[in-house]
Amino acid sequence: MAKRVAVVGAGVSGLACTKCCLDEGLEPTCFERTGDIGGVWRFTEYVEEGRPSTYKSMVSNTCKEMSAMTDCPYPEDFPVFLPNARLLEYLRLYTKHFDLRKYIQFQTTVISIKKCPDFSTSGQWEVVTETDGKQKSAIFDAVMVCIGYLTEPSLPLDSFPGIDKFQGQYFHSREYKTPDIFAGKKVLVVGMGNSGVDIAVEASRIAKKAMISTGRGAWVISRVFDDGYPWDMVFLTRFMNIVRNALPSRVTGWLLASHLNQRFNHANYGVVPKERSVMREPILNDELPGCIITGKVTIRPSVKEFKENSVVFEDGQGEEEVDVVVFATGYKASFPFIDESIIKVEDKHASLYKYIFPPQLEKPTLAIIGFLRPLGAVMPVVETQARWVTRVFKGLCKLPPLNAMIGEVNEKKKNITWFGLSYDEVLKTDCLTYMDQVACSIGIKPSIPALLLSDPKLAMKIFFGPCSPYQYRLVGPGKWDGARDAIMNQWERTLKPIRTRVVEDSSSFIAYLLKALAFFAVFIGILYGLN
Amino acid sequence: MAKRVAVVGAGVSGLACTKCCLDEGLEPTCFERTGDIGGVWRFTEYVEEGRPSTYKSMVSNTCKEMSAMTDCPYPEDFPVFLPNARLLEYLRLYTKHFDLRKYIQFQTTVISIKKCPDFSTSGQWEVVTETDGKQKSAIFDAVMVCIGYLTEPSLPLDSFPGIDKFQGQYFHSREYKTPDIFAGKKVLVVGMGNSGVDIAVEASRIAKKAMISTGRGAWVISRVFDDGYPWDMVFLTRFMNIVRNALPSRVTGWLLASHLNQRFNHANYGVVPKERSVMREPILNDELPGCIITGKVTIRPSVKEFKENSVVFEDGQGEEEVDVVVFATGYKASFPFIDESIIKVEDKHASLYKYIFPPQLEKPTLAIIGFLRPLGAVMPVVETQARWVTRVFKGLCKLPPLNAMIGEVNEKKKNITWFGLSYDEVLKTDCLTYMDQVACSIGIKPSIPALLLSDPKLAMKIFFGPCSPYQYRLVGPGKWDGARDAIMNQWERTLKPIRTRVVEDSSSFIAYLLKALAFFAVFIGILYGLN
Repeated sequence: MAKRVAVVGAGVSGLACTKCCLDEGLEPTCFERTGDIGGVWRFTEYVEEGRPSTYKSMVSNTCKEMSAMTDCPYPEDFPVFLPNARLLEYLRLYTKHFDLRKYIQFQTTVISIKKCPDFSTSGQWEVVTETDGKQKSAIFDAVMVCIGYLTEPSLPLDSFPGIDKFQGQYFHSREYKTPDIFAGKKVLVVGMGNSGVDIAVEASRIAKKAMISTGRGAWVISRVFDDGYPWDMVFLTRFMNIVRNALPSRVTGWLLASHLNQRFNHANYGVVPKERSVMREPILNDELPGCIITGKVTIRPSVKEFKENSVVFEDGQGEEEVDVVVFATGYKASFPFIDESIIKVEDKHASLYKYIFPPQLEKPTLAIIGFLRPLGAVMPVVETQARWVTRVFKGLCKLPPLNAMIGEVNEKKKNITWFGLSYDEVLKTDCLTYMDQVACSIGIKPSIPALLLSDPKLAMKIFFGPCSPYQYRLVGPGKWDGARDAIMNQWERTLKPIRTRVVEDSSSFIAYLLKALAFFAVFIGILYGLN
Repeated sequence: MAKRVAVVGAGVSGLACTKCCLDEGLEPTCFERTGDIGGVWRFTEYVEEGRPSTYKSMVSNTCKEMSAMTDCPYPEDFPVFLPNARLLEYLRLYTKHFDLRKYIQFQTTVISIKKCPDFSTSGQWEVVTETDGKQKSAIFDAVMVCIGYLTEPSLPLDSFPGIDKFQGQYFHSREYKTPDIFAGKKVLVVGMGNSGVDIAVEASRIAKKAMISTGRGAWVISRVFDDGYPWDMVFLTRFMNIVRNALPSRVTGWLLASHLNQRFNHANYGVVPKERSVMREPILNDELPGCIITGKVTIRPSVKEFKENSVVFEDGQGEEEVDVVVFATGYKASFPFIDESIIKVEDKHASLYKYIFPPQLEKPTLAIIGFLRPLGAVMPVVETQARWVTRVFKGLCKLPPLNAMIGEVNEKKKNITWFGLSYDEVLKTDCLTYMDQVACSIGIKPSIPALLLSDPKLAMKIFFGPCSPYQYRLVGPGKWDGARDAIMNQWERTLKPIRTRVVEDSSSFIAYLLKALAFFAVFIGILYGLN
């Protein structure tokens, strides 16, 4: 009999897990507390308890070719970066294509997940769920927890003296839906993460004043990157990753900083990170610099204290009037339905092997999927996790011994790489390296030396081109025949939705000629200019 | 007795003219048909007949240091690029500082401007105005017409077959005020000028769909230019201008295109101009590429025809549903109160010497101010025009003989420079060259060789730095003592409003060290990567 797997949540991770279970001949049951799929990507007008909430204008930070499931490219007419509604549309297509809906029990909340008495031999779990107020218990051979980390807001009001006296409105960014609430108001956004910046930018269009308070600052990347290509297709290549990881982390950080400063000098714009050479999680935003230079958004340092109708910042530059404060202070991870002896979150970090397995369990039958923040797309990462985990469940892949796992987990807590993994930020990981590690465990990592002999064109694309998800479907279990084509045509699909007006380039011969002349001409021009 | 000058309009040009008249001891009377100053920069909720109209979100295309009157920098806390309300605030400060208000007759419309019978000897004009329905006539020694070219919309409906059958809403961009009218609608903006793009970008945030139809395409410049500096402070320098004008226009065009393509490939984004190497009026927009890549704005070719509820484009790609069409098709210039024998507009062009003087007049006592579209700020250009014109009125500056003026005017009509002045675009001019020509006539152009000897630091700033307006107050009539300081501190004033969070750079020594190591390290990294 096929092993029964409980999947908790039907967002991106839950859908990938359900599909991967089916691929491996496991029998998934996906519990979703709401009435629909999509998780954080399904926008609702009102915040719903116990599920992630997003704002209406939210757009993916990674482009469609990098954000696809590994065997399912986006339809070619989808935009390059996806507004939440389009990404949800993709998830619906995915769900339909792999016929996942029938494995999902909607309106069903997971109440508790407990080891069965014979766990040390069976590895089984007792899962209690609630539907329409009625509880039900069932035994599963394995459990995949896919609830993300965006459900419980972190609102550390203690860190903001005077907030109790503040007469204006304040709320956590989770509550934010549309900008109309800011009309004519003086708005302060505390925190410079992606949502904080998005909210401030949106507010600035109708607010009287919009400020972002940030102690730490951030590097800001534009979705429209070099030559207008999507940032992640340029940035996340195997070649660039090798270069970055080969260099000392401070050098890599400095090189990246120089590159990002070419777009706009981060110090001049007030956003520069306190530790400039440490590349913490960057912000993806195309509009912030334009908002700053037109005076619509002002960047300020940390809040010192709130007063009745104003705020004082730590730079001692007097107080600023404020009507509305948005705390974009992030989220606390938690697993309320699992006992702390199994998984415990401290400082936003849970000690999980490869961010997935609680290492001390006698049987590896519990997996946390999507509990990380890669610098890159989440979708292919969680799907690769799911492919590995389902094979671990089946016994086709083995985990290392306990002390090796614990050793690696502890090492991660200490390790600061070029991407600046500090202890409380350990959820953020270098996605390409991580993907390759997991892929190696499954046997799906493409071998570039081997490809160079058999298919050199593909090898070059894989090494120098964007590390797109389809690379993990070229070989090994789950090999997909469409993978090579998907890789070879990824740029065409990227350009398709934006090249909607084509002008014949009659000047290309002239362009070549001019290119040759240009260097000479500039030289002459400069000489002439200096005389 | 001081000469009496009629100034028509109290926008940017009218205010500059009034002030320049006072500087030269002339006696200005400024007629303004509305109740307030500001012209195009004064936003009103509703379109008002006979005056320019603007939309609520309009922001200056040129930065504050380049857009100032030559003897009046913006207050240092003003934003770098100015939302219309802030620019109006500046105009109010300017008006107050030079006490101009008392010379303005509000609610007074100019009905006609006619030569007096003895014009050939006196050069005088009879100006008929109307206030509260009562007409009044007065004699003036000279007239300055400051009505701009943004009052009479050009809406060539004949060029759009089927528009009469179109069931949706359509209007000229002049009618546009705020984006709420687009909520949930399918919007088509016809024309890719600055307002067209601004409107499409704004619409895209709440519309169901936003398209821009453009036959010609355009180069798109970001306000946030190289390293985040304002585009015009980087682009409009004497050094760069000499280089640009020294090169063949196609080479300059190609170099510029390459530079702009580094931000985003204009062909990939569908906006590339039909004639790539001709640098027609570029669009200033920071958000368009981001809107295109997220699928919010789609660029399409020229309209072939309209149908009842849709539009067909010339690329034959089927029809697209449309609810609202905005014709951002520009303006027709006209001078309804002056007889055509004096000034006639054909093809958006009037035959004016230096865009100012009707050459055939017996006396140079009529000037059209601000009737041009410089690639750069309008404000210092119109002020310099006004300084010259007032001195011509006083007889301190002389115009060349009639045939020389007519020769130059005809030459301009033919001339296509690197900036692509074609006949119907003759209003658009290379602003630095033009400013210098006018400045030479007044004797206010700074001499760099002379400055190199007396004040080399200033000379370098003037030659390699932004060609800011204050340069025209260093010498000659109207010399301003504050000019040197204004030039030396222009970058400080630019950065002041955006550097609102300052982080000490503890890593600068390390940065230098790393800079030295980086090239070596990258080299090693690449080698390593290739192995």
